[in-house]
Amino acid sequence: MFRHVSLLMFTPQTTQEQQQELGRQLRTLPGAIGEIRDYHVGPDAGLNPGNYQFAIVADFASVDDYLVYRDHPVHRELIEKYVQPIVASRAAVQYEL
Amino acid sequence: MFRHVSLLMFTPQTTQEQQQELGRQLRTLPGAIGEIRDYHVGPDAGLNPGNYQFAIVADFASVDDYLVYRDHPVHRELIEKYVQPIVASRAAVQYEL
Repeated sequence: MFRHVSLLMFTPQTTQEQQQELGRQLRTLPGAIGEIRDYHVGPDAGLNPGNYQFAIVADFASVDDYLVYRDHPVHRELIEKYVQPIVASRAAVQYEL
Repeated sequence: MFRHVSLLMFTPQTTQEQQQELGRQLRTLPGAIGEIRDYHVGPDAGLNPGNYQFAIVADFASVDDYLVYRDHPVHRELIEKYVQPIVASRAAVQYEL
């Protein structure tokens, strides 16, 4: 198994509605990209100061399946429309499980 | 379920051996802290430029179980001995699955 992890910080202007819409849009991806095995996204719970604001964790059977997801046009369009306008910084890792 | 995600960047002086030792040490935690349900750590696969270098993803049955892990003395000692000496930056999120 192969895991993709992405953590986001939003610009100060980002609204709650924009963050919720991002969550809704991301949750449509498993229906659109069959290579996704497991997909959990959501806002930070607010327990710890200094945290990032949003997490995306996606599991795949292989590196190749992850690359299909990474480069899938539905995914790229979502990033362009719902991530890029509100993201201030991003931390990501892909790793073998 | 409740998930903890932590991504690390290491100082330039950090050796491969130190990174591998961190992985070995972290993988002992599920044996020491019964609240951990699922635990996957590892180095970035090197597919994408700008990535962080190491991922820790831990799943728990509840927020309270996560807090036991966060504050557990075995975990705190591991952070002090094996993370703090080599970490340059850290991005973290905890969220509901």
